[in-house]
Order: sequence, then structure tokens, then C-alpha cells
Amino acid sequence: MFVILVYDVNQKRVARVLKTARKYLYWVQNSVLEGEISDANFVKLKTEISKKINKNEDSVIFYTFRTTRYSKREIIGIKKGGDENIL
Amino acid sequence: MFVILVYDVNQKRVARVLKTARKYLYWVQNSVLEGEISDANFVKLKTEISKKINKNEDSVIFYTFRTTRYSKREIIGIKKGGDENIL
Repeated sequence: MFVILVYDVNQKRVARVLKTARKYLYWVQNSVLEGEISDANFVKLKTEISKKINKNEDSVIFYTFRTTRYSKREIIGIKKGGDENIL
Repeated sequence: MFVILVYDVNQKRVARVLKTARKYLYWVQNSVLEGEISDANFVKLKTEISKKINKNEDSVIFYTFRTTRYSKREIIGIKKGGDENIL
């Protein structure tokens, strides 16, 4: 499946969350990562992120897509992430 | 169509970008908005955002979906946005 991850975590935990997310996904923009991921790795990713955040303070959103056939990504302004992106 | 907007703009311009985006979409999390939008309003939104940002410094990503049938949103941690969300 395809995943878009957007995090909003306390500055103290950003590096840890980013490091975990980058094991599975590509960095696209400040606080946004995306990529193809297997069901098994998606479960791992969520488990690892859960351990890294403070659930009373932080928020991480996962948008998952069974297909990217009906989707499109457009950027206005500078493109920050790499070209490894799939969408 | 359904849109997810993620912005990464200089602090000086956040309020203006957020105000524009909220005319069309719901706030979900720090720097993320989403919602159903018509094609005509999507063009308007992009035009207005273009005028508010500095294209050499800021970055705004629009993910658009012709259908949300194949998608899902999961949140770990606190839910910051309202319940108006569609996905």
C-alpha cells in the first residue's frame, strides 16, 4: 500500500520520530513522508512510532491507499524532498 | 475531489496561508488540512495560496484523490482537528 505520514510532535522527539519513519518511507517535506510499504512493515512502523511519541502531546497521521491510481501530488513553491517519491 | 494540503512555510506567512486554506478545507493537524473540494474551488485555492507564499522559501503540497474509497486515515496520539473530517 502507499502511505503518507504527517507528524506533529514536540521538538524534543522530532529527530527520533523522523529517524524511525525514514526507515520505511521517503522524506517529502518538513513533517511529511511517503512511500510504498508492505502490510507487515506498516504494522511495524506504527508500533515503533507509538513507542517514540508522547500520546498526550504528539500526533501522527497515516493516510493509507490501496492504490495511487486515483491520486495526484502537486507542489507549489520549492520541492524539498528527493526524487525517490512514487506518487 | 478530496484534497490533503500540507504546508511548510516561513512562520511569517503561516497565518495568511492557514486563513486561505481554511476557506476551503478543514484543519486536521499542525500544517495539515483536508476536505472535499470542487475542481473550480481547487483552482481558486491554488491561485490564492500561490499569491500568499514565497516560492523560493515555502512549499505547499496538495494530494488530490478522485475517490477516497481506497484510502484510510489513522491517527496515533492526540487528535487535534475537528470532527468535520470526511476521510
